[in-house]
Amino acid sequence: MTIEDIRAEVCDLHRHLTRWGLVTWTAGNVSARVPGEDLLVIKPSGVEYDSLTPKSMVVCDLDGNLVEGEHSPSSDTASHAYVYRHMPEVNGVVHTHSPYATAWAARGEPIPCSITAMADEFGGDIPVGPFALIGSDDIGRGIVETLRGSRSPAVLMRQHGPFTIGPTAKAAVKAAVMCEDVARTLHLARQLGPVDRLPATAVDRLFDRYQNVYGQPLMEGHQ
Amino acid sequence: MTIEDIRAEVCDLHRHLTRWGLVTWTAGNVSARVPGEDLLVIKPSGVEYDSLTPKSMVVCDLDGNLVEGEHSPSSDTASHAYVYRHMPEVNGVVHTHSPYATAWAARGEPIPCSITAMADEFGGDIPVGPFALIGSDDIGRGIVETLRGSRSPAVLMRQHGPFTIGPTAKAAVKAAVMCEDVARTLHLARQLGPVDRLPATAVDRLFDRYQNVYGQPLMEGHQ
Amino acid sequence: MTIEDIRAEVCDLHRHLTRWGLVTWTAGNVSARVPGEDLLVIKPSGVEYDSLTPKSMVVCDLDGNLVEGEHSPSSDTASHAYVYRHMPEVNGVVHTHSPYATAWAARGEPIPCSITAMADEFGGDIPVGPFALIGSDDIGRGIVETLRGSRSPAVLMRQHGPFTIGPTAKAAVKAAVMCEDVARTLHLARQLGPVDRLPATAVDRLFDRYQNVYGQPLMEGHQ
Amino acid sequence: MTIEDIRAEVCDLHRHLTRWGLVTWTAGNVSARVPGEDLLVIKPSGVEYDSLTPKSMVVCDLDGNLVEGEHSPSSDTASHAYVYRHMPEVNGVVHTHSPYATAWAARGEPIPCSITAMADEFGGDIPVGPFALIGSDDIGRGIVETLRGSRSPAVLMRQHGPFTIGPTAKAAVKAAVMCEDVARTLHLARQLGPVDRLPATAVDRLFDRYQNVYGQPLMEGHQ
Repeated sequence: MTIEDIRAEVCDLHRHLTRWGLVTWTAGNVSARVPGEDLLVIKPSGVEYDSLTPKSMVVCDLDGNLVEGEHSPSSDTASHAYVYRHMPEVNGVVHTHSPYATAWAARGEPIPCSITAMADEFGGDIPVGPFALIGSDDIGRGIVETLRGSRSPAVLMRQHGPFTIGPTAKAAVKAAVMCEDVARTLHLARQLGPVDRLPATAVDRLFDRYQNVYGQPLMEGHQ
Repeated sequence: MTIEDIRAEVCDLHRHLTRWGLVTWTAGNVSARVPGEDLLVIKPSGVEYDSLTPKSMVVCDLDGNLVEGEHSPSSDTASHAYVYRHMPEVNGVVHTHSPYATAWAARGEPIPCSITAMADEFGGDIPVGPFALIGSDDIGRGIVETLRGSRSPAVLMRQHGPFTIGPTAKAAVKAAVMCEDVARTLHLARQLGPVDRLPATAVDRLFDRYQNVYGQPLMEGHQ
Repeated sequence: MTIEDIRAEVCDLHRHLTRWGLVTWTAGNVSARVPGEDLLVIKPSGVEYDSLTPKSMVVCDLDGNLVEGEHSPSSDTASHAYVYRHMPEVNGVVHTHSPYATAWAARGEPIPCSITAMADEFGGDIPVGPFALIGSDDIGRGIVETLRGSRSPAVLMRQHGPFTIGPTAKAAVKAAVMCEDVARTLHLARQLGPVDRLPATAVDRLFDRYQNVYGQPLMEGHQ
Repeated sequence: MTIEDIRAEVCDLHRHLTRWGLVTWTAGNVSARVPGEDLLVIKPSGVEYDSLTPKSMVVCDLDGNLVEGEHSPSSDTASHAYVYRHMPEVNGVVHTHSPYATAWAARGEPIPCSITAMADEFGGDIPVGPFALIGSDDIGRGIVETLRGSRSPAVLMRQHGPFTIGPTAKAAVKAAVMCEDVARTLHLARQLGPVDRLPATAVDRLFDRYQNVYGQPLMEGHQ
């Protein structure tokens, strides 16, 4: 994969953010690690989704410095870069303010693992990370400290919104989409009464099966 | 109808799942029985809705084994197959995690038959089925035991989501669409106060009329 | 206006029902009176919105009997016809099961006139009509008895859904769209606390102004 | 920029109101000040969004009188004009009845600044303005008195809906879009429990950074 391929892929993946209702105006971004190089490709800052082109994607080093591109990188680049520096198994990061997930984040409440779709994708609760301000390593550190050792590819950064990670950029996008989906379903469920968590043994069996059996053997090179 | 016709129909019916907001990412599937043969046609596993083609649909026997197709069948195939084996009058099955219906399922609460549209289509409450794990006959058995003898073509599998059945695949799709619709309306209604069930005599009259009078005499061969 | 023109208009007006999210599957209908004749034009029963054509619209007399058309008329035709027989000033009728309005109808609770947009269009609360079964004049009579003498062009038929009327079919469609809009806004408002009704003098001034000043002098022949 | 350019821009900006779900039927409007002249360009009254063309936009003076155009101006023109007369730094005004923001307005409750996206764009709570009837300067005066000296570009006019302002028309549109977005997220958050406001020092730092660092250096001449 050349950097041009990755620019095209990162650009294209943003369509999932709009299609599944995760973003408003320009507030969400996808990045991918450039394999074998200390580089990442990310959305430019403040550009509308309909105007994104592969060429407008920005290449940065893993300290978040601009390496190549005609635009400034996303204001969240430093947080993405921190994740890539500290989690070598991660090759994609997504950040949104998707409404239901951000509502749980605003209360600082983890999403309880209460339905099978959540056990499949997240293997347990979706955890809450610390409140952290942009402009230092605090957000990146909060993501890494919360997700390291967790089966969940999603973290709800307190009073901010969800970040998701994945072995590919597409997997991180899928986690962002499913995070909002289960955040919505559990929100609706809880509005009219209490909801039980699934038993831990059921969660383990579902997570294991989904990660190893679901989908096509070599589906489009992803997952 | 040849198998090619059924592949085309099953593929096409998936557009209703996206149009009416029943599915997220790849998590929902439609199947149809092949008339006169112990076969079913179903969605491939983990393939995005926009990428579905008639050719990518998968043919399986009624034990859920792959018979023909370039992809792995949906991970829910065994559950669909169980229904076809045990309910000969069923020719279509649909499964989704549609948000409002899944919210009722997460609480394990039947949807009360409180509005005329629900009496028309479901003839009573939409019942809850048992919690069951994927990977055995438990889900299929739970669907059949709950729906056999019920007027409702929909069951809310506990902490999982809705399954619907029908005399045609399109009827099962319609039941999935209407299940989410009434799940949403009753959710909204209940948020601001209690809601009465309709009297049983009114439900009976509405259900009988709708099943026998509504629609066109031989409408497109469906219903 | 010929009957062909009215078929085309009624067919076209259904796009507003789908665009504004008022209908699911085939459950909603628009009709128009044929000026100067004891006839109405209405949607065929059980036909999907994407398949509607001017030719598929059905012409009935004001007792609801089929006069011209290749399809059976909407199962709600008798209710529309009753309204035209008893309210000569009405030239359009719309029925939907739009989710927020139907949620208020399910509880049998009028929508309180608490925001200016509601005073503009409805001139007060949106009232609740009686529970009535399809198959007699009961629904039509309930609509007429509730709306006669009311400024509201919308009635919430209990445990059923909204019906709206207008001096034109387009005005009835607009009332259906605005009924769902204010049903949603007041639902949301009430979820987090009480909401005051507007003072009666403010409602009167807003309603009067909106009916007489808003819009273009001879806007497209409507309103 | 000629008046023709501004007509085209104002017409085009209305697409954001429909895309982000802020408006129903014809109930929302964008205006822009004509630089260096005592004129504004605004949407015509009661015209559907799909029918808007640059030519159908209306030019008025800053007392709200029609100067040029084939249609009557928006019924909210006097309110927009009042803002331009009294806030020379404002070059764009937007008014909608977007559902979540209007729900807060219906209760007369400010939206608490509880998430980082809200600190970024609004620099604090979104305040509530007085109840005021159309037909005098009351609405315009209420907007100006509430927003003068506030960092928020949005005000929730009580029992009416949001108005937003900006240094450009596009900035006012963005504020309207983000106002609905945070109104929705905070509504959802509050439904399941209490939500803390962000500390004032965090709000200050976020607002300052977002206003000065986010986006592209000279992004399309906006912001």
